[in-house]
Amino acid sequence: MNVNVPNPKITTGSLPASRKIYIKGKTFPNIRVPMREIAVHPTAGELPLPVYDSSGVYTDPDVNVDIRKGLATLRREWIIARGDVEEYEGREIIDADNGFVKGDRLTPEFPVSFKPLRAKDGKAVTQLAYARAGVVTPEMEYVAIRENQLREANTQRDGYDWGANIPDLVTPEFVRDEIARGRAIIPVNINHPEIEPMIIGRNFLVKINANMGTSAVTSSMEEEVDKLVWSIRWGADTVMDLSTGRNIHNTREWIVRNSPVPIGTVPIYQALEKVNGVAEDLTWEVFRDTLIEQAEQGVDYFTIHAGVRLHMIPMTVNRVTGIVSRGGSIMAKWCLHHHKESFLYEHFEDICDICRKYDVSFSLGDGLRPGSLADANDEAQFAELETLGELTKIAWAKDCQVMIEGPGHVAMHKIKENMDKQLECCDEAPFYTLGPLTTDIAPGYDHITSGIGAAMIGWFGCALLCYVTPKEHLGLPNRDDVKVGVITYKIAAHAADLAKGMPGAQRRDDALSRARFEFRWEDQFNLSLDPETARSFHDETLPKEAHKVAHFCSMCGPKFCSMKISHDIRAVAQKDGMEAMAEKFKKGGDLYMPLDKIEAMKKADAAKIADGSKEPAE
Amino acid sequence: MNVNVPNPKITTGSLPASRKIYIKGKTFPNIRVPMREIAVHPTAGELPLPVYDSSGVYTDPDVNVDIRKGLATLRREWIIARGDVEEYEGREIIDADNGFVKGDRLTPEFPVSFKPLRAKDGKAVTQLAYARAGVVTPEMEYVAIRENQLREANTQRDGYDWGANIPDLVTPEFVRDEIARGRAIIPVNINHPEIEPMIIGRNFLVKINANMGTSAVTSSMEEEVDKLVWSIRWGADTVMDLSTGRNIHNTREWIVRNSPVPIGTVPIYQALEKVNGVAEDLTWEVFRDTLIEQAEQGVDYFTIHAGVRLHMIPMTVNRVTGIVSRGGSIMAKWCLHHHKESFLYEHFEDICDICRKYDVSFSLGDGLRPGSLADANDEAQFAELETLGELTKIAWAKDCQVMIEGPGHVAMHKIKENMDKQLECCDEAPFYTLGPLTTDIAPGYDHITSGIGAAMIGWFGCALLCYVTPKEHLGLPNRDDVKVGVITYKIAAHAADLAKGMPGAQRRDDALSRARFEFRWEDQFNLSLDPETARSFHDETLPKEAHKVAHFCSMCGPKFCSMKISHDIRAVAQKDGMEAMAEKFKKGGDLYMPLDKIEAMKKADAAKIADGSKEPAE
Repeated sequence: MNVNVPNPKITTGSLPASRKIYIKGKTFPNIRVPMREIAVHPTAGELPLPVYDSSGVYTDPDVNVDIRKGLATLRREWIIARGDVEEYEGREIIDADNGFVKGDRLTPEFPVSFKPLRAKDGKAVTQLAYARAGVVTPEMEYVAIRENQLREANTQRDGYDWGANIPDLVTPEFVRDEIARGRAIIPVNINHPEIEPMIIGRNFLVKINANMGTSAVTSSMEEEVDKLVWSIRWGADTVMDLSTGRNIHNTREWIVRNSPVPIGTVPIYQALEKVNGVAEDLTWEVFRDTLIEQAEQGVDYFTIHAGVRLHMIPMTVNRVTGIVSRGGSIMAKWCLHHHKESFLYEHFEDICDICRKYDVSFSLGDGLRPGSLADANDEAQFAELETLGELTKIAWAKDCQVMIEGPGHVAMHKIKENMDKQLECCDEAPFYTLGPLTTDIAPGYDHITSGIGAAMIGWFGCALLCYVTPKEHLGLPNRDDVKVGVITYKIAAHAADLAKGMPGAQRRDDALSRARFEFRWEDQFNLSLDPETARSFHDETLPKEAHKVAHFCSMCGPKFCSMKISHDIRAVAQKDGMEAMAEKFKKGGDLYMPLDKIEAMKKADAAKIADGSKEPAE
Repeated sequence: MNVNVPNPKITTGSLPASRKIYIKGKTFPNIRVPMREIAVHPTAGELPLPVYDSSGVYTDPDVNVDIRKGLATLRREWIIARGDVEEYEGREIIDADNGFVKGDRLTPEFPVSFKPLRAKDGKAVTQLAYARAGVVTPEMEYVAIRENQLREANTQRDGYDWGANIPDLVTPEFVRDEIARGRAIIPVNINHPEIEPMIIGRNFLVKINANMGTSAVTSSMEEEVDKLVWSIRWGADTVMDLSTGRNIHNTREWIVRNSPVPIGTVPIYQALEKVNGVAEDLTWEVFRDTLIEQAEQGVDYFTIHAGVRLHMIPMTVNRVTGIVSRGGSIMAKWCLHHHKESFLYEHFEDICDICRKYDVSFSLGDGLRPGSLADANDEAQFAELETLGELTKIAWAKDCQVMIEGPGHVAMHKIKENMDKQLECCDEAPFYTLGPLTTDIAPGYDHITSGIGAAMIGWFGCALLCYVTPKEHLGLPNRDDVKVGVITYKIAAHAADLAKGMPGAQRRDDALSRARFEFRWEDQFNLSLDPETARSFHDETLPKEAHKVAHFCSMCGPKFCSMKISHDIRAVAQKDGMEAMAEKFKKGGDLYMPLDKIEAMKKADAAKIADGSKEPAE
């Protein structure tokens, strides 16, 4: 093994009070769907709470993680069993793939090599193709089990869904139907057999994406792999590798081989590296070659900015912030220089032909998204969206899975229009937005400015929310920033699920609230999105262990604790007995008495009044 | 002077690139309304941007702050000039007012003593009484100037206002009318002459409140005064002193004398201290005495939980989190023990009589607000809200200013119902909500879970947003938590202003976005809500001063910077000249050409085609 192969310290181990469980499939008994069970204190008398778990085996203490070997390739047998793929030699890796770096500066190759798979001639190996053919794949059953989180069919639901079509229980057949309809995607490249499949669509749980990547200025491969593991630990459902530096090929290999979540990329970034950063020198051939390179590595979805058309560029003339999408600006420059439509647009069908061979999903990029409130919902943005709608239909005709990228910077009152227009233009293909940021005036807090917009658009129907970290607009996120970004977006996605009325979404809120009311501090921490932070904040004021069982907290102290007072009242009611208390307090005695008892008492009273044994109350 | 008198280090000094300016009144030339002007780099060719400034003279380098003397009593002459108040001896301070502490443990008295004012017999000295009498007060002109932020009448506006009545320019007469209508309040106790008046109402800028206070468990007086100054520095419009420990009277005096913003309290907390924490021992007499004590000190608004009625308490029986309002639970306990309606409810008119003598505004407390999503919008909550509507009318009949407190914990789809029902029940009296939190599962991040709800309800019409810090549910906020809470709520309030279409609200967003597009890094920091954090985040990755003028940032590096590419394209257009470029790029030449030039070109082309000197484009 190359001595340069690093052995970065990867964050492993369970979250507090949590246990990894695996649920078997019914149609496909060999699938094992991971979930996390959070145990609560015995006094609660409650079963452990199952929650969605995107963290992979890194949180499974029974699995020995070695990132030099990569994750188990569980999905490979499902793929092979379909009989429509073939192994082949694959494209030769060239110096340009790693930005021409050599020797010590070259990130080592991933130690294990494998031959890529591709569809046999004429076959489409996409989940969409199978869904249309009426085939329920293991991937579909997998995500069905995963979405349900062990809920019952009659789970509580509430909310307003804005015309979505959310079932009480997700069945594999429902998944198949939604995919066939184009309303959901399972991003799963056949060359990413390590993946734990997940689904993106408006009738499923809202998902979040975390971005990461090396850049020209800073960061190393070790950090990137650790960021992947770190971000999925806190809940990222997909990860985009947006590396723009050198060593892109080798770094990506390390990431994909160790990723249980779908990996997305923006292939134009690597293509640009191959032509030394000169946008005008980009060609279809270089780009096509890059797509194949990445498809063979197992990238699950590609951002393709094919919607940036020549005639739209002048529409950005009066904008406050011009074109802010990197991919969009690169393509705009290319289009202008050559004075023609981009090769992405002109070769879109060829791109589809590549994607269908590997089941790479499209994430149709919004190259003209607004970079400021002033530019939101303008002519350029919506012209591109209409083109994305046209491209969606082409991709669908080629059996390719598609989602659509969206803004950006949008004031609250303009968010709904974005969602509605996307649903209309793109015929309900899943929407994938960056925020949107609801104000431009808070750099340093753009996880919050955008978390507001993300929660709202998630409620309105957006399927995937791309996180924004506190460093947005200012610098590269570090480990803490990634965590804050992920947690903020888990909040937004969950708030959206609640408002949409995803069945059972409120179970975790209710469990945590019960813990709060019963002063089960440990349960309150463990049930939260970030137990470490919750605990450390509590300990800042009341560090002693004894205080974790205290029936009050530092905010009010024992005398003013409303919850303590509520409990005191209940205790009095229990001690004195309901009837004695009723006597003592007259009408007040029905405090904390179950409603059926109240009804029974009322009936008894009415009977007594009727037969004269009791006076009516004044 | 008592040797124990502290001289805490108070944060003073301008914010970066900022200058304090004062705008004179027209009707009342002696009023000086503070604003902050943020200067931008000369290359921008832009005037300094005026922004709303709640920070008081602490950010005015021309003023020597000495918290032992208190702020200047600018407003006293306006009050005296009305001729309807009288000085009197005031209530004697008793040991109980400070929780019976003595000697070294007693927080020193504020060094300057003064005699309180009260209304002359039969007079109402409230802004509402004046407004109804058709009188425009100096306070009204003050807030009119303050709200406009020097905007022009024809300022850009956008947004959807949900039936609000937002004028292009705020006039003193408009302020008077809104107050007379009960739709806005100016919380200004006649004994708080240090105040810089501000207005709360749905047709004005959305405001935010920061809570602070000593508690039984921790924190000291020095910290509290510093928290006040710290929180207004970052934008808190009002501050609630929620102290529940000892030394309440003396600590509050220090706070009020040094506060340019309205101070609110929950008087029942102090009253409870006076009866040694035994809720059942509370009496109307103790409470009334506490109201007078606080009114004489200059408290600007009182939270009064008079809406908690006996028959509502059983409605909380099936709740997940019972009663979570401290005041609400105290009153519930009292009502049950005595089995009668609370003295707050029964003596509500007497409370009004006190408030009208000093112009203490009501903040009608929501003692039965939900403490979890499960309890949101339930029978108990809305029954209380209806009572608050009845109390509003009583207070209005007594010429008292009123706002209404609201939840709490509410999923997104239930937020609008809260706002609508409040507007209906309380006839558009200003709404003042705590968040609401849109999920229960993120302790440690409840500034964010609630910032989402706050932005939304602010858009829908909520006038005042009570901040939530990251420590909510876990511990007492420290200095950093207070800042994060305030900034998060400034974001929510501003996002709401933008969505409501407050005229000129987007000026700051646009100025910052222009700075961003032009790589004016310093301007981008200075125009932001938190310049310190923005700068430090930038410096983490690119610390060198040179990078602050770099035309790229650490996220993408120079090669991938979309904004740099956009500028490169513009530069090419300028260098080659528009016409040459048009020739070169044919139709592409209209890139970044002003629209009027494009129109002119089209007309010229059409003329040429018409006279045969040019071929139509293919």
